[in-house]
Amino acid sequence: MRTQVVIIGAGPSGLLLGQLLDRQGIDAVIVEHRSEAHVLSRIRAGVLEDGMTSLLKEAGVGQRLMDEGMVHGGFAIAHHDQLRRVDVAHYTQGRHVTVYGQTEVTRDLMEARRASGALSLYEASEVRLHDIDSDAPSVTLVHQGETLHIECDYIAGCDGAHGVSRRSIPQDRLSLFEKVYPFGWLGLMSDTPPVHEELIYARHADGFALCSMRSSTRSRYYVQVNADEKVEDWSDDRFWSTLSHRLPAEVGEALVTGPSIEKSIAPLRSQVTEPMQYGRLFLVGDAAHIVPPTGAKGLNLAASDVSVLYRILVQVYHHGRKDLVPSYSPTCLDRVWKAVRFSWWMTNTLHSFPEDDGFAQRMKDIELSYMLDSVAGLASIAENYVGLPYGELLSSEVVNKFSSPNYPQEPLTAKKVCSGS
Amino acid sequence: MRTQVVIIGAGPSGLLLGQLLDRQGIDAVIVEHRSEAHVLSRIRAGVLEDGMTSLLKEAGVGQRLMDEGMVHGGFAIAHHDQLRRVDVAHYTQGRHVTVYGQTEVTRDLMEARRASGALSLYEASEVRLHDIDSDAPSVTLVHQGETLHIECDYIAGCDGAHGVSRRSIPQDRLSLFEKVYPFGWLGLMSDTPPVHEELIYARHADGFALCSMRSSTRSRYYVQVNADEKVEDWSDDRFWSTLSHRLPAEVGEALVTGPSIEKSIAPLRSQVTEPMQYGRLFLVGDAAHIVPPTGAKGLNLAASDVSVLYRILVQVYHHGRKDLVPSYSPTCLDRVWKAVRFSWWMTNTLHSFPEDDGFAQRMKDIELSYMLDSVAGLASIAENYVGLPYGELLSSEVVNKFSSPNYPQEPLTAKKVCSGS
Repeated sequence: MRTQVVIIGAGPSGLLLGQLLDRQGIDAVIVEHRSEAHVLSRIRAGVLEDGMTSLLKEAGVGQRLMDEGMVHGGFAIAHHDQLRRVDVAHYTQGRHVTVYGQTEVTRDLMEARRASGALSLYEASEVRLHDIDSDAPSVTLVHQGETLHIECDYIAGCDGAHGVSRRSIPQDRLSLFEKVYPFGWLGLMSDTPPVHEELIYARHADGFALCSMRSSTRSRYYVQVNADEKVEDWSDDRFWSTLSHRLPAEVGEALVTGPSIEKSIAPLRSQVTEPMQYGRLFLVGDAAHIVPPTGAKGLNLAASDVSVLYRILVQVYHHGRKDLVPSYSPTCLDRVWKAVRFSWWMTNTLHSFPEDDGFAQRMKDIELSYMLDSVAGLASIAENYVGLPYGELLSSEVVNKFSSPNYPQEPLTAKKVCSGS
Repeated sequence: MRTQVVIIGAGPSGLLLGQLLDRQGIDAVIVEHRSEAHVLSRIRAGVLEDGMTSLLKEAGVGQRLMDEGMVHGGFAIAHHDQLRRVDVAHYTQGRHVTVYGQTEVTRDLMEARRASGALSLYEASEVRLHDIDSDAPSVTLVHQGETLHIECDYIAGCDGAHGVSRRSIPQDRLSLFEKVYPFGWLGLMSDTPPVHEELIYARHADGFALCSMRSSTRSRYYVQVNADEKVEDWSDDRFWSTLSHRLPAEVGEALVTGPSIEKSIAPLRSQVTEPMQYGRLFLVGDAAHIVPPTGAKGLNLAASDVSVLYRILVQVYHHGRKDLVPSYSPTCLDRVWKAVRFSWWMTNTLHSFPEDDGFAQRMKDIELSYMLDSVAGLASIAENYVGLPYGELLSSEVVNKFSSPNYPQEPLTAKKVCSGS
């Protein structure tokens, strides 16, 4: 079998890339080792940057999003028992985010893919990538008992941090940057009306809390818990009283509680792999980087990677611009690192860290106070929350930056990409 | 002997407060345990915020500052071998800083004090503060062999972190917040023209460097060194080559070197004491807080404390507003903490920390990149560099903040001031 692009992974980034390529007449096969139902069962983020919303529309899957998504022009930060609104639209010339669950995005994309008739191979086992550093890469797998060999031009690794794509790159060609946070998020979903019309991120001496939502009747709440907590130890009652205590009094009192329909604990980490490309293999989204959920950057960052790769592939196939291929990693990484910075900053500033002494705690407290008191600070939060601009292709500034003698502070394999590995 | 205000310490904050009070007909005696010549020999910061410049003019000592000070509308940050200018004036509606040595400020204030005929007691020994928590505080000291007892209404402690003022407050009434940085600054002064018309703060993998100046013919340079370095190990040649290496190539090549006329190593720390007031004693400047020199906030922060105390005392003596007295500490602390945050941020972002792993180094690198690439980021740096607004007296918002149940994260004696200790 032969195709132009093999996409490993049928999560939202793989599906979105497939859909965008399909509409440009570029042939792509999606390979996923799980079932469609399993992929759809994963509950993830629910706040889309406007850049991702535009990309979904460009992919022809924006209708239900526009009909059902909740458009938010801001959000609140609870600090010192007060709600402080960050007027995102005001500070970003009218831009906004859309609350729409990742599960819904995946569902829309799966339906569009089915309608297009493009090939998706679910429940594929023994997926292997071959000759990715040559001009003739290929993928082998077992599907419904049959061994398939797919020859292709490029492979998009959209299969997350533990997928086969990242593992297929020689380890000595990758640099890993990682921060594991000393706590987790206990999340609860309930069919209760959200306590506030926009999201609330709360800083409290006892720990972080987040009030989010999926619709006007379904809420999603989180509280910071110790890294070793078990979900069995958290009754709904305990969750609700903990959440309420961490919110400003007037918000806590307005909270409508109800039975959980989902409850789970997720660890928090920041992780970046460099480079995001090796030969003919591109790492996309979680395969290259993980962010803590604070600030909702994970899915959005995957979307901006997809956008860069999609634009490169269109240039390659429609305009013969193979010279653009090496710009994928540095173009993505500039925005990736800035989004990693923002979610790290949100995480640092809003959570309680057991290792922080009095000075460190105060600095985080004052950092937040300053940012919320300053127009420049609010504008900075706003532009990051709504999403920094997607990278321009082959920005020589970016490429040069990555090969500057003073950058970075330790040997980096990113340079190898720029010089065309 | 009786006066209205005893000022402990004849550094720039004590002298400035004395001068401002003298012009309002408020009687103040300055007590200093060192000689005038010793005070004048201390080489310190040289960048004045416009708020301090205004205050010096208000004190009648602005003439030489206006004649000789170098007005700067911006500064540069060197990053990735490039100079990036922060256009401070552009982002702050035309505000600027003035390069004018602290020694010169002190000299101007000493001359004004001599001209006013107000009493200053230099080389005072055995200085003791008495009954500061009563309505009748006093100060005793030995001056020229004679024991003096000065009764007063208020005492301004302008005598630094190791002075008698802070030590006179019961230790269980003070909270200390401190961060000691794992490096120092090696500074060199030379009679050579500055390499750049504005200051350059350089981030480099090997460590921080700063290009500053005192005049068009006198330069002041610094390089980050290990905490245990000795100045004897640093020849001028070694200093110049280290500095040059840490600057962008074009800047390093333009450096005019010459023999040092001063060379010393200073440690870096952030420190805040709360509250800044105990009874009739006010802590001013370094007596209450220390900042690392990065961002040049130390002297400017002392000036904003002086401004708050001066305005309170004018209200007390001219308008009978004793009710304003308890607002000193919370009014000052709001701005103090924000300036401490900025100098901590500048220090964190521009220096190499031995304990930083690859992720932490990258975050600092990207933090700086983001701030310099973003209008909001540049505006934030600019407004902090030129100086945040001086606090309004008796801001109920500030006072409430300090007594909020969620603030701070550990018991604080600042509350006691607000309720009138």
